[in-house]
Amino acid sequence: MSIYEVGLRDGLQNEAAFIPTAEKVRLASMLADAGLRRIELTSFVSPRWIPQLADHAEVTRDAERRPGVTLSALVPNLKGLEGAKEGRLEEVAIFLSASEAHSKKNINKSIAEALETLTEVAHAARAEGMRVRGYVSTVFGCPYEGKVDVERVVDITEQFLAMGVYEVSLGDTIGVANPRQVSKVVARLLKQISADKLALHMHDTRGVALANVLAGVDAGIHTFDSAFGGLGGCPYAPGASGNLATEDLVFMLSEMGYETGVDLDKLVDATMHVAELVGRPLPSKVFQAETAQRRKDEEKAAKARPSVASRAAR
Amino acid sequence: MSIYEVGLRDGLQNEAAFIPTAEKVRLASMLADAGLRRIELTSFVSPRWIPQLADHAEVTRDAERRPGVTLSALVPNLKGLEGAKEGRLEEVAIFLSASEAHSKKNINKSIAEALETLTEVAHAARAEGMRVRGYVSTVFGCPYEGKVDVERVVDITEQFLAMGVYEVSLGDTIGVANPRQVSKVVARLLKQISADKLALHMHDTRGVALANVLAGVDAGIHTFDSAFGGLGGCPYAPGASGNLATEDLVFMLSEMGYETGVDLDKLVDATMHVAELVGRPLPSKVFQAETAQRRKDEEKAAKARPSVASRAAR
Repeated sequence: MSIYEVGLRDGLQNEAAFIPTAEKVRLASMLADAGLRRIELTSFVSPRWIPQLADHAEVTRDAERRPGVTLSALVPNLKGLEGAKEGRLEEVAIFLSASEAHSKKNINKSIAEALETLTEVAHAARAEGMRVRGYVSTVFGCPYEGKVDVERVVDITEQFLAMGVYEVSLGDTIGVANPRQVSKVVARLLKQISADKLALHMHDTRGVALANVLAGVDAGIHTFDSAFGGLGGCPYAPGASGNLATEDLVFMLSEMGYETGVDLDKLVDATMHVAELVGRPLPSKVFQAETAQRRKDEEKAAKARPSVASRAAR
Repeated sequence: MSIYEVGLRDGLQNEAAFIPTAEKVRLASMLADAGLRRIELTSFVSPRWIPQLADHAEVTRDAERRPGVTLSALVPNLKGLEGAKEGRLEEVAIFLSASEAHSKKNINKSIAEALETLTEVAHAARAEGMRVRGYVSTVFGCPYEGKVDVERVVDITEQFLAMGVYEVSLGDTIGVANPRQVSKVVARLLKQISADKLALHMHDTRGVALANVLAGVDAGIHTFDSAFGGLGGCPYAPGASGNLATEDLVFMLSEMGYETGVDLDKLVDATMHVAELVGRPLPSKVFQAETAQRRKDEEKAAKARPSVASRAAR
């Protein structure tokens, strides 16, 4: 099983706090330490849209390069791609909504218009030897249109692949998917697209993300997007959770007997650090259980340790 | 699909706050309003063990009786059963651990010793015309023993059924089950026991409860235990979540096309009330998303409404 870590991008862009650049760089290294092999660092969008990621150039410049670890960034257009090129990223991600209404609201372009731009971006990226990943958002439901036609998802996925995109990530942007729907949508896509070219990107707004992952695994998908700690409060529902937590995903997959290559202890270290930085409790349940256990162990160790006073008295 | 609501018992017994008796009674009515048809009210255990449920006699006496709604209580022994009889409950629940070490730690009895007591309790309850439900705890893992032998679970389940227990609920007490394990355990039980006689009671300590429910549904189970709001912080991991949230369970099952008979809006009303009483944010994600949406709607409505000042100025 392969995990694509989106916390530094899809997570932080939906957190209120601005994390200092040096800390973002450090977090990327901690995620790599934990065994994550594909890390989306940031997004080359205007700071007016996403001030939390305004330091995309600096983060990209300073992030540690390691053999076997791919760093990528979201790019909405040729200008964004220029930034990723200057930052010497080997991979970029492009995105498109499967809902016309969502596309208009989100980027003020129809799907057809957006596809034109993205074709240019993808070709320019490929010409530079960069890998291109594609996101399709609102695949399982749209806040404006409701249901989304799966044939439109198939069509966009095919167009992405035709542009040279190596993997298409199907997003449940607002967290409304259910396992039966995931099974059906994935089965439809697998009729004409290889599982190697697909990923699932589930949001946990209503708690169903892991069940949807299970449906995805059973349908043949083996790549999943997630964010450490479950970073990324949903802008839709303040207080609610956004991204599926990497810890929970890793726990479930490992317990089911799948290799993920992720060291849960080290991942929790990274999440403890980012939790302090964002200044709010993070929704990952494995993270919560693990940190509670660590506190308990520390209390036990503190009790077992002779105090300074008792040692001095000897 | 059938939901057995355990929030007032398994939820509240793991919350720090003591909820006043009248509020517990009111909550039981609100849960019935929401369409829940089986509600576990309380536990007839010593207040020394569970002070939060010390008012079991009063709650049982005062709880509203409605046609079609079954109220039950946990009873550990004949003394507890006496209380349930005096309270005129039509159903009681008994419990037993599938792990020897857990049984010893929890009730200071071996499984064989506990079975003797429970046989007496079940026979006495049946003689009074009461229905008896059985819980098997630590089915998917024990904090002391680790793995638990599925054959012991089968054996206890068979012994429960032989006592006249109408339904056996298989508990993931510490929230360590994974979907593949659930599929295997359920398949083993279904070899000799009908699905009509089984339920799953998953805890969400590591976020996998709904995925485990999905595995249970796919294996043929159609009864699930849950607690409104996800009440019941895990004593193991303070801050972590305990019971699977009824809202999240209802949302997933409904979206998958299954009838639950539960009105999510009314259930959220009950949970909003109990959240105020326990004084902490509750982990149910559907509840969090729903209350955030309600706040947003109210803000919109408040903006649209002419203020008192502007109305007075007309």
